Amino acid sequence: MTTTNRQIVLKSRPEGWPAPGNFEMREAPLPEIADGDVLVRALYMSLDPYMRSRIGTDRPPADRMPLDSPMEARVVGRVAASRHPDYREGDLVFGSLDWADYSVAVGAKNLRPLPDARYDGKPVPLAWHLGALGLPGMTAWIGVETATPVAGETLFVSAASGAVGQVVGQIAKIRGLRAVGSAGTDAKVDFLTNDLGFDAAFNYKTATPDILSALQGCAPDGVDIYFDNVGGVMLEAALDAANLRARIIACGMISQYNLARDETPGVRNLTHINRKRIRMQGIGVSDHDHRQDEFLTEMAGWLASGRVTYRVDVADGLENAPAAFVAMLRGENFGKQVVKIADEA
Amino acid sequence: MTTTNRQIVLKSRPEGWPAPGNFEMREAPLPEIADGDVLVRALYMSLDPYMRSRIGTDRPPADRMPLDSPMEARVVGRVAASRHPDYREGDLVFGSLDWADYSVAVGAKNLRPLPDARYDGKPVPLAWHLGALGLPGMTAWIGVETATPVAGETLFVSAASGAVGQVVGQIAKIRGLRAVGSAGTDAKVDFLTNDLGFDAAFNYKTATPDILSALQGCAPDGVDIYFDNVGGVMLEAALDAANLRARIIACGMISQYNLARDETPGVRNLTHINRKRIRMQGIGVSDHDHRQDEFLTEMAGWLASGRVTYRVDVADGLENAPAAFVAMLRGENFGKQVVKIADEA
Repeated sequence: MTTTNRQIVLKSRPEGWPAPGNFEMREAPLPEIADGDVLVRALYMSLDPYMRSRIGTDRPPADRMPLDSPMEARVVGRVAASRHPDYREGDLVFGSLDWADYSVAVGAKNLRPLPDARYDGKPVPLAWHLGALGLPGMTAWIGVETATPVAGETLFVSAASGAVGQVVGQIAKIRGLRAVGSAGTDAKVDFLTNDLGFDAAFNYKTATPDILSALQGCAPDGVDIYFDNVGGVMLEAALDAANLRARIIACGMISQYNLARDETPGVRNLTHINRKRIRMQGIGVSDHDHRQDEFLTEMAGWLASGRVTYRVDVADGLENAPAAFVAMLRGENFGKQVVKIADEA
Repeated sequence: MTTTNRQIVLKSRPEGWPAPGNFEMREAPLPEIADGDVLVRALYMSLDPYMRSRIGTDRPPADRMPLDSPMEARVVGRVAASRHPDYREGDLVFGSLDWADYSVAVGAKNLRPLPDARYDGKPVPLAWHLGALGLPGMTAWIGVETATPVAGETLFVSAASGAVGQVVGQIAKIRGLRAVGSAGTDAKVDFLTNDLGFDAAFNYKTATPDILSALQGCAPDGVDIYFDNVGGVMLEAALDAANLRARIIACGMISQYNLARDETPGVRNLTHINRKRIRMQGIGVSDHDHRQDEFLTEMAGWLASGRVTYRVDVADGLENAPAAFVAMLRGENFGKQVVKIADEA
């Protein structure tokens, strides 16, 4: 084992679009661990849109990732050294750790063993533990439940080929809904309908004559549930297409994260919320930690039976994490964005 | 009894602000009534912001009030003639009827007797049956319930001296909440705190340096429930001031009703809904008709005990209804806007 560690720290807070230069790689000695701690060798690391709001200035200072400290991420890794009775060297684990080759899980906090999960007769790819079986999958699962779906209704999800969206659409089908998705390339749209079983999908960047028309074409009976990952003009179209008593799950608004407040056009048709008696609900998966085992059991069952599949987009190498993060915010990823940090062996 | 009837009909659909010229008074013969019908002499008529959306072009044609037909309103009146076994000449009734001196309630549909209700030892003023005991009061009652209030929380209501708002604030106090209101004149603000028991209130037109600061000054612990009657910039401020897991009741958005969609600035901070896990819920009192008796019983109790009071703004004469309607949309009313059509005797 090496004696040095690589970490990526936040060097400056972006205004507007972040750039790789907001981050910096640094080397540090491999830390000693104390009694109760676990040293984890990262294998895969998750990049998530919510991180954007933690590195900027729009949240209260206490909610920001600190400067000159390693960025945080969900990581799948292997125990490199353990002084905790529940973990042994070589164990595969999931944790909230650093953007780094190695992290210390002090007191094994925020660490858990990887659940058993199989797909197509084999253990699922490790990166899926950051996706379908990770926070994105659980966010989708909680969000669809929060929408109180009724079989036969139409669910529309934006960023539908992304980390959360692909699970939302597949759960929608399992729940007997019509699943409609939007994405930003024709290849993604084909993936939704051909590989994930969406009933219809459209490319919002080439929608003709506009997004609303494309959405209405895909959802001829209107939208009963809108699972919002993007906000902005897509939310506005969904409000227009929404049926009476529609539910909107406010999961994320990635289209807004890199705009100053006075740069956003604003959503101008919120009167629909009143007139159509819409319920719009913000969700945060961390409110539902106590249901993680229930989620993992159900999702593992869906994966084992092939009812849910998952696509990841793998950036290779810790050093490429900042560029991959920025590209993800621009929608250039195809599937859930992860960074491969080391080989599994 | 006269043999002619006066009615106000919709002559043209406003774009932007309506004007009295969108309406026209016409005379018609007093109608004959058939078996099962009731002829009602209107005494007071309710003017409500929602009517704006029914006379314009932004709703589907089926939801619009028709041209050249009498406008509809909630009316308190006296039975002038009855061929229905449940109603006798002279009875006081509440109904959905015409902007007119006389209306026929065909089959006594949408008609009900006035409930017994007393205030300060006397029967409540008749106009209160269009306010505290009418749809505005029931809207407030349903809306506060929908917000799932917890004693000690802060509720903020806009248009707080209006038809719905004054009841919202008083129910908030009954439920053990801190009640904060906004209104558009200093006299209204004084009324909220001096007469209705609001804990704090502000004049949004003179708020210094801005609405958000004024709101935060009145709600130092943040906003747990925002009862939205106006939308637009007030909704934006409420989202900024909202606490984690706040609830927003979308009751109305009067600031938006007279603007074309591309004239509204849009709401630019909806990311708060996700980040703060806010629930925003549109309500419509017509979804809750089956709970009317329960509402009337509770509200009559509050009025009888003096825990709720109510202010009406009376325009005198059917012929003045169009001007009063437009003035109400501009916020020139002080209290719930009604039109007195005839003396009670």
